Amino acid sequence: ILNQDDEALLKLLENEHHADIAEVLEDLNLEEATYIIKLLDSDLTSEILMEMDEDDREKILQNLSEKEIAKELDELDTDDAADMIAELPEDRQQKVISNIEDKEHKADIQELLKYDENSAGGLMAKELVKVYDNWNVLKCVREMRAQAEFVTRVHSIYVVNENNQLEGRLSLKDLLTTSTKTPISEVYIPKVDYVNVHDSAEDVARVMQKYDLEAIPVVDDNMHLLGRITIDDIVDVIKEEADKDYQMAAGISQDIEADDTLWQHSRARLPWLFLGLFGGVGAAAIMGGFEEMINKHAVLFFFTPLIGAMAGNVGVQASAIIVQSIANSDLKGSIANRLFKEFSLAMVNGLALSIILFSFTWFWKKEILTSLAISISLFVVIIVAGIIGTFIPLFLHKQKIDPAIATGPFITTSNDIFGILIYFSIAKMLLGI
Amino acid sequence: ILNQDDEALLKLLENEHHADIAEVLEDLNLEEATYIIKLLDSDLTSEILMEMDEDDREKILQNLSEKEIAKELDELDTDDAADMIAELPEDRQQKVISNIEDKEHKADIQELLKYDENSAGGLMAKELVKVYDNWNVLKCVREMRAQAEFVTRVHSIYVVNENNQLEGRLSLKDLLTTSTKTPISEVYIPKVDYVNVHDSAEDVARVMQKYDLEAIPVVDDNMHLLGRITIDDIVDVIKEEADKDYQMAAGISQDIEADDTLWQHSRARLPWLFLGLFGGVGAAAIMGGFEEMINKHAVLFFFTPLIGAMAGNVGVQASAIIVQSIANSDLKGSIANRLFKEFSLAMVNGLALSIILFSFTWFWKKEILTSLAISISLFVVIIVAGIIGTFIPLFLHKQKIDPAIATGPFITTSNDIFGILIYFSIAKMLLGI
Repeated sequence: ILNQDDEALLKLLENEHHADIAEVLEDLNLEEATYIIKLLDSDLTSEILMEMDEDDREKILQNLSEKEIAKELDELDTDDAADMIAELPEDRQQKVISNIEDKEHKADIQELLKYDENSAGGLMAKELVKVYDNWNVLKCVREMRAQAEFVTRVHSIYVVNENNQLEGRLSLKDLLTTSTKTPISEVYIPKVDYVNVHDSAEDVARVMQKYDLEAIPVVDDNMHLLGRITIDDIVDVIKEEADKDYQMAAGISQDIEADDTLWQHSRARLPWLFLGLFGGVGAAAIMGGFEEMINKHAVLFFFTPLIGAMAGNVGVQASAIIVQSIANSDLKGSIANRLFKEFSLAMVNGLALSIILFSFTWFWKKEILTSLAISISLFVVIIVAGIIGTFIPLFLHKQKIDPAIATGPFITTSNDIFGILIYFSIAKMLLGI
Repeated sequence: ILNQDDEALLKLLENEHHADIAEVLEDLNLEEATYIIKLLDSDLTSEILMEMDEDDREKILQNLSEKEIAKELDELDTDDAADMIAELPEDRQQKVISNIEDKEHKADIQELLKYDENSAGGLMAKELVKVYDNWNVLKCVREMRAQAEFVTRVHSIYVVNENNQLEGRLSLKDLLTTSTKTPISEVYIPKVDYVNVHDSAEDVARVMQKYDLEAIPVVDDNMHLLGRITIDDIVDVIKEEADKDYQMAAGISQDIEADDTLWQHSRARLPWLFLGLFGGVGAAAIMGGFEEMINKHAVLFFFTPLIGAMAGNVGVQASAIIVQSIANSDLKGSIANRLFKEFSLAMVNGLALSIILFSFTWFWKKEILTSLAISISLFVVIIVAGIIGTFIPLFLHKQKIDPAIATGPFITTSNDIFGILIYFSIAKMLLGI
């Protein structure tokens, strides 16, 4: 189909949603995908490109000239356009920008490129509907019609004073139901949520979720209205945050997808595995220090994987709860309270598990002392692991380090080593070797 | 402040957002919170209650009469009202419903209660703006003003035929810019995304994310328009999904929060810990079977935690990638391809890690054969763990079981046992005991 019949192809794609076409293109090879992109209109292809996977998009953009890319950008909202340019190599960025025809659009994109990707400025779009507080409803409706042409979706109408400082917002409903001569200053709602352009993306997401907002205006330190952020961008932020935390917990250190290359996967996974390896070597060295126990109490050595694994599991459970509470910012009470609660919980769970383990080991080897040593160690290890798992993410958070890092192999590995050290120390005391 | 001065209190809260008041109430004790709820207007308190944590809300509702609850429900959108009723005990539900004054509202809520919580029906609200295809623009605008009173936010205007079957949608923009006599049938957009009332919440979230929708209409099997779902409900679904997967990966089997009771925490964490305990006991039993090796090659036993931990880490890394790809539905290629890729990756990572481990063990004990046994085992274990970690979630997904269950202690534990079995088998072969 692909080789010749352009018209049939165009007809075929005409009625498809751009998100669906993007999926089809991702499955085609590069030449075919580029061919289709060049064939279609730039108002459609720009949307298709935005829906595509970053890596696939990058490859296609490499096959397009700066002029062709600039044409795509002309069709995009400023926030999407800035995101797309930011992915290009430095030297191409300038060339592409100079090829953008619409001067205002160009200036807007250049402004957005200045902001950090993970800040409110990096998320916002310049497209918005704003009215001045000295207009009346009629003028307002007229101007809005003109402005709305450039805005994909009208969420809110922002009211500014003559210095472009945010004063409030207008509801579409009020606008529809008020007489046309009423001055805006009488109908606008002065209470409006906003974020600062330098706020972090996570903070913006939190505010918008908390107040159920679908769009929020962005201002600078002097309340000048700079842009607005819409909920669909926030959905992406939330998804990415969650994905990142999940991967961190699974011991994957970079954002990767199943379809990335072998080397990307290897690079993302190896660091944590190295950590695990050093942890294991550390545990082995500790056991080497207790080697003299092996002749009389070989059974102790059979339970090291159990002690290590349980220490890891309990630590991860404890830290995951804390990390999630921090992420949802619904953590209350002092660190001391948290630690006490975790301590009580570890007492309960530890007691239950230790009794079971004691029954098993006693039934197996009929040695009271070793059975006691093993089960008491498990009890102590569960308590220590729970406290470490609670304390580390809280501590990291206080130090302004992302606590999610604490849930993965980091906790598992350190608890492994602590656990085994505690285990053999208790055994040595009890068995008196 | 709380004891007497009602007026001052009302003034204080008057200008606060209901989400902020909800936070304050959660920090107060139950009596104080109930007092404030009874003091405030029901249009405000209904919003406050919806923002509160489920457990806190439940306690306050216990202190309110059926009539008072019905009053709150009268103020809420149908979807929120249905959610709140669903949390009450069975016998109170009927009493509360019979106390709702607005008959239409009552019927809507009763309809919504029939649908499964995790389906499109469970998410949707009955509030929407709809117009008939035989109206003209003028009639449409008039009717819309009337309908819009009951709808918090107008996202889309849906067009239906005389049988209430979904035909398309109207854009506000088009409505504002078209002459008032144009019939709706000439201006509406016949292409409209929709979901079936029985679709799962996850599917709805996926569709809305893919097509960047802010609201989607819900229809039954015969295309009758039943309700609509808005993006803010979907944000909650996405958050909950992500939280659930994260907790699953951390070995927490129920949705809990840091502030839940000790027993809730214990119940959520113990099941996976039991599993870990049995895994550890299994590993100990396997080692018991190789006890004769302990005299000559004690060092082998020092590395069991390392082998177990690495098997667990690699397995979790592999399964997390698969689970995440399935959740984002961007997994391509056959199972065989996936397994081959994971196999190659495990070869690369396994080789790197084994060489390091070999150097270390040789340097420590200067025994070529045991060093070889340990490092070759690590290599094999990494490959097997990677393949198990890839296969299990893919298999579960084919069996329509949530693959997220595979990332947690389940993979860790089974890989622990496999790993140690492989380790000692290889050692036995190499060292010929």
